[in-house]
Amino acid sequence: MKNTFGNNVSVTIFGESHGNAIGVVIDGLAPGVDVDENYINKLLELRRPAEAISTSRKEADKFVIESGVFEGKTTGTPICILIPNEDTRSKDYSQTRWLARPSHADYTSNCKYHGYEDFRGGGHFSGRITAGLVAAGGIILPALNKKGIMIGTHIKKCAGISDRDFSDNLIGDIESLYEKKFAVLDAAVEEQMKQAIISAKNNGNSVGGILETAITGIDAGVGEPWFDTVEGVLSHAVFSVPGIKGIEFGAGFGLADMYGSESNDSFCYEGEKVVTKTNNSGGINGGITNGMPIVFRCAVRPTPTLSLEQNTVDLQKKQNAVLNSKGRHDPCIVHRARIVVDCITAITVCDMMTGRYGTDWLAEI
Amino acid sequence: MKNTFGNNVSVTIFGESHGNAIGVVIDGLAPGVDVDENYINKLLELRRPAEAISTSRKEADKFVIESGVFEGKTTGTPICILIPNEDTRSKDYSQTRWLARPSHADYTSNCKYHGYEDFRGGGHFSGRITAGLVAAGGIILPALNKKGIMIGTHIKKCAGISDRDFSDNLIGDIESLYEKKFAVLDAAVEEQMKQAIISAKNNGNSVGGILETAITGIDAGVGEPWFDTVEGVLSHAVFSVPGIKGIEFGAGFGLADMYGSESNDSFCYEGEKVVTKTNNSGGINGGITNGMPIVFRCAVRPTPTLSLEQNTVDLQKKQNAVLNSKGRHDPCIVHRARIVVDCITAITVCDMMTGRYGTDWLAEI
Amino acid sequence: MKNTFGNNVSVTIFGESHGNAIGVVIDGLAPGVDVDENYINKLLELRRPAEAISTSRKEADKFVIESGVFEGKTTGTPICILIPNEDTRSKDYSQTRWLARPSHADYTSNCKYHGYEDFRGGGHFSGRITAGLVAAGGIILPALNKKGIMIGTHIKKCAGISDRDFSDNLIGDIESLYEKKFAVLDAAVEEQMKQAIISAKNNGNSVGGILETAITGIDAGVGEPWFDTVEGVLSHAVFSVPGIKGIEFGAGFGLADMYGSESNDSFCYEGEKVVTKTNNSGGINGGITNGMPIVFRCAVRPTPTLSLEQNTVDLQKKQNAVLNSKGRHDPCIVHRARIVVDCITAITVCDMMTGRYGTDWLAEI
Amino acid sequence: MKNTFGNNVSVTIFGESHGNAIGVVIDGLAPGVDVDENYINKLLELRRPAEAISTSRKEADKFVIESGVFEGKTTGTPICILIPNEDTRSKDYSQTRWLARPSHADYTSNCKYHGYEDFRGGGHFSGRITAGLVAAGGIILPALNKKGIMIGTHIKKCAGISDRDFSDNLIGDIESLYEKKFAVLDAAVEEQMKQAIISAKNNGNSVGGILETAITGIDAGVGEPWFDTVEGVLSHAVFSVPGIKGIEFGAGFGLADMYGSESNDSFCYEGEKVVTKTNNSGGINGGITNGMPIVFRCAVRPTPTLSLEQNTVDLQKKQNAVLNSKGRHDPCIVHRARIVVDCITAITVCDMMTGRYGTDWLAEI
Repeated sequence: MKNTFGNNVSVTIFGESHGNAIGVVIDGLAPGVDVDENYINKLLELRRPAEAISTSRKEADKFVIESGVFEGKTTGTPICILIPNEDTRSKDYSQTRWLARPSHADYTSNCKYHGYEDFRGGGHFSGRITAGLVAAGGIILPALNKKGIMIGTHIKKCAGISDRDFSDNLIGDIESLYEKKFAVLDAAVEEQMKQAIISAKNNGNSVGGILETAITGIDAGVGEPWFDTVEGVLSHAVFSVPGIKGIEFGAGFGLADMYGSESNDSFCYEGEKVVTKTNNSGGINGGITNGMPIVFRCAVRPTPTLSLEQNTVDLQKKQNAVLNSKGRHDPCIVHRARIVVDCITAITVCDMMTGRYGTDWLAEI
Repeated sequence: MKNTFGNNVSVTIFGESHGNAIGVVIDGLAPGVDVDENYINKLLELRRPAEAISTSRKEADKFVIESGVFEGKTTGTPICILIPNEDTRSKDYSQTRWLARPSHADYTSNCKYHGYEDFRGGGHFSGRITAGLVAAGGIILPALNKKGIMIGTHIKKCAGISDRDFSDNLIGDIESLYEKKFAVLDAAVEEQMKQAIISAKNNGNSVGGILETAITGIDAGVGEPWFDTVEGVLSHAVFSVPGIKGIEFGAGFGLADMYGSESNDSFCYEGEKVVTKTNNSGGINGGITNGMPIVFRCAVRPTPTLSLEQNTVDLQKKQNAVLNSKGRHDPCIVHRARIVVDCITAITVCDMMTGRYGTDWLAEI
Repeated sequence: MKNTFGNNVSVTIFGESHGNAIGVVIDGLAPGVDVDENYINKLLELRRPAEAISTSRKEADKFVIESGVFEGKTTGTPICILIPNEDTRSKDYSQTRWLARPSHADYTSNCKYHGYEDFRGGGHFSGRITAGLVAAGGIILPALNKKGIMIGTHIKKCAGISDRDFSDNLIGDIESLYEKKFAVLDAAVEEQMKQAIISAKNNGNSVGGILETAITGIDAGVGEPWFDTVEGVLSHAVFSVPGIKGIEFGAGFGLADMYGSESNDSFCYEGEKVVTKTNNSGGINGGITNGMPIVFRCAVRPTPTLSLEQNTVDLQKKQNAVLNSKGRHDPCIVHRARIVVDCITAITVCDMMTGRYGTDWLAEI
Repeated sequence: MKNTFGNNVSVTIFGESHGNAIGVVIDGLAPGVDVDENYINKLLELRRPAEAISTSRKEADKFVIESGVFEGKTTGTPICILIPNEDTRSKDYSQTRWLARPSHADYTSNCKYHGYEDFRGGGHFSGRITAGLVAAGGIILPALNKKGIMIGTHIKKCAGISDRDFSDNLIGDIESLYEKKFAVLDAAVEEQMKQAIISAKNNGNSVGGILETAITGIDAGVGEPWFDTVEGVLSHAVFSVPGIKGIEFGAGFGLADMYGSESNDSFCYEGEKVVTKTNNSGGINGGITNGMPIVFRCAVRPTPTLSLEQNTVDLQKKQNAVLNSKGRHDPCIVHRARIVVDCITAITVCDMMTGRYGTDWLAEI
């Protein structure tokens, strides 16, 4: 499916950066789930540009729940959330219409849609579309929490500066992240990262980073063999977040340099529960959860839009050209992308669990 | 879908390591595609254990095409290829039935299937099931080649030893790989890698590595926004290969340490064709192909089965236990997994192209 | 999929009768397709209540295209069309909240959604939701027409009164239907049917009927064997129209009383084209189109909402009860359902053809 | 999906009439379900030709379970059942290769597959492929029975002769049908129907009929709104049975002549259970089960293969031609199709229930 994801609980997203509205339809979510508009707003706020280190575009993200919620709870039928576009500066695009921004979707969408695409501000490929995913997460995440499932993402690395790892107090770590606009576990590195971002911005440049996500509270035995492995389905979902170019589970690429005797996670009993002493598998064996926290990391490339002059092509004149981009843009999207990763992860987990335990798994009955 | 993958061209796999047979059903493949049993055998041979560095289990992989092929060509209806199991040593499993092998699927499949799983030799989670994918690739890969699409995978790293990168003569590199049982581009490193594998084997240990895959010949404009990005769909497919725990496209995790001015791939015209000077995006922008080679790397963990003694649990006695594994096993699967990655990639590319260009895209009409 | 239908071109519908808005998301539609808001309005007008023979609820059906259309043409990305609810009379439901209307979805949705469903006016099960399908049809139908595919539905039977069959001038017949609010081919029967409907209404009763649909202009060779037969996919789609309880293709149930020598459609050449002399197969052999018009008929039951007193249950008190329904309702939905059948058929045909000929099949390039 | 059906529990079918083998892969079926090869054989026997009234082709239908069953129970992983073709008379097809049999799939498959199709004996479009569905039903039906769900089909009409309706002792009726090779409820009509079939056969002709199916034991609240209505999903499945050209639920086409006051099914309490006094809705309201038996009827056309001379086209010479068919064939398939309808219905019910109640719904745990 192009803009729909999920088998049992699915999301469909739509909209363009400078169109009328963007939005999301959530289908298959159980009836009776609490819908707290304040919480949705809280998550949307975590995605919104942060002063100094983000674009100056103001996105109020005032959303309207058009369907699927009745008397404050989900009905079980599709939930459409619409987010009208507001600050769509009526800019003159005639200068840059045909100058494909390097590493952006301008050229590829032009090839795919033959010039009919809404090119303004990245159109349907704008990161703005992720606001719909965050709104969906604003309903699903608290419902998962009630079932004992916690999901959290921190900035493991940004502009070459690293955060500390998740601690043994994983739930505490995760809870703390939702209170932070800039999601690092080690408060000491926050300022360094921000300064590196501002420095890049002042040079008309941009930086990337690595996000690390943990999911805790999922039983052993969830996931499917072969094609719908937990890794396969999560990676499919997570690559929908713009700018993500890599994903690894557990020790990931580090496994390439280990011996089996180092990488294997020994089982042992902790009371009646089977646990592993290490978690190099990232909570997944044979594509199926083993009851340990699921841990993965995503590589986020530097934002492709720069103020620096760049070489490119003019697709209309069919000749080489030089691009000077003057639009508002983000020198880094890592800190904004983290809540999007949390939310797409929540949607995917909800789908997997609903498949395993049935359509009423999240229902309050 | 659990054991089925693909929207327009799909594969369904089945079988267990020590059951009657394993196999694959390929559906939606265009009519009139040549089926060369010798070529299928050639690819299966590339997956079979290599002397000294592999398991001593002998798998003849004699396959039978049960349907979907008529007079040497595909009919357009489902192709079932059956591969009977032969060397299923009638071993006594009573010693180890309930001792979950660390980092293997024993524990998780037991949780998922409540003890009804065929546990012998990993059952449905055995790497042996990938022979079906390779058989499917044996039909699809040559058909893609006819359309100018080449796919090749080399061992970028194994046991800490690195191969050279793909050269500018990418097609030559790819062609050379199909002539090699041990797929490295730099012949000089082959012996070093093999020695490292044998050394690990002699210690009852195992090693992992990194596979690098290139796809060339795909037009710009293929792929879907958001959920069916080329990265998302390929990663979904590739994580079905046992032992893969990470995937990165283009510069991947390296992007986290770059500036945008370094990571961006400038466009320019090469004759009438738009190309990029670098390929940090791995041939994909906004989830859609840009006409450059698609390049990705996969992390393969060390084989979890070891001869070394390991701590684990006894799932029947519900107590800690010690596992001494005496079965035949691979000290490394990197060199065997590469053809599986080629084949699952070919299947996925065939599916994407058929979606874009219609069901007769590969048909000889 | 619950509220999403289609593989290559899909629609997702949402909304409740008395909620904020209803709507549709169309995904996968080719870029460059003309979008004529007047034509969408024309089709919505065909679905709107007709004076005297329909409900008195006024539905302005003012729609907003929120995404996916740029400069009057489709972009190729998802099209969201929102239709705000307006005349949602703020009625007091306390009297009838727990009295399940016979043959309506009140009881079944209560069982499925455990009481969380928006019960007002049928909620998500209201026929009103079909307006989204009609809006989608308003874009897709004219695009199909440009490709030579015509789709039309007439009221074959209503309240026991029959319309004439489609004539040899099938395209003329179809074109005429789009000019009629009450879609009969034989003008003489219109008044009889309407009088029968009014008579039922005056008695607090309702009537049903049969719709007959023809599709012309589809090549031979479209459709899939076994599970995605043209009959299977169309019936799946058509049963989503509320009130439809049967479907038959070609001679349908009449085949049960024929000999093979009567029911078989002999082939012959008409110039270079293979045609059949009769069309008892309804244009489909082995699930695949044969190039003749596809013809099917749907049984539409009488509207379940009546003014007559009915026996039912009180789901709260858990006892038998008597229902006196005073709401506005339709004594017949056959004449309104026909355009919905046209539109869901158009969506399904567009999906099938796009699967066969690729994503650009409808694109103007 | 072309040859795969089902979301949670799916079947994939493959094979051609005169190829190596036909078969089925069942995926997603819960672990721990009993597999009784005798019962599978019993159902296959119900599908096999009956003396005098069927084709003389002998199909031993000796099947092999290749995977997914271990120690007599399902493992939860894919079950492949292979049925080798045996009596594939090495007939000379050169006379009739290009003469499209009227109302058969010869012409349409030739258009779809461009002449690459295996044309012998109908190839992939042969009714023989349904043996795979029956084998799947041989595992699923008894598992459903254990959960209190009974499914049965009788020949409501054949060659113009009608069987009695299902009685109030519905479960008794259903049980009796599995003991009958020729499934009529009223023993008195059996001989009449058979004589009519033999008479048609002696004239080189064929007859059709109507099958009526009842499903009992499904809770209220199963099914999905709009696109995955119970009617929509069942009809999608049932149209995969060759020769079926119509389906109706409850009173079906008869509803077209009723008033709402006649067709509505009043609710009332029977103890604590809500029931309806009539069942014109066929157990489904708003696409969702209401707890009453699901009842539907299918129209089966006369077998298209006749011994009588027929007009047709020669696809090679591109001219009109006359067909004299001398092959073995069935003068009627109604009595053989009934067990296929039972089995595809069982597969579909199993899929719906597994979606609602989770992957372990049928598991013995």
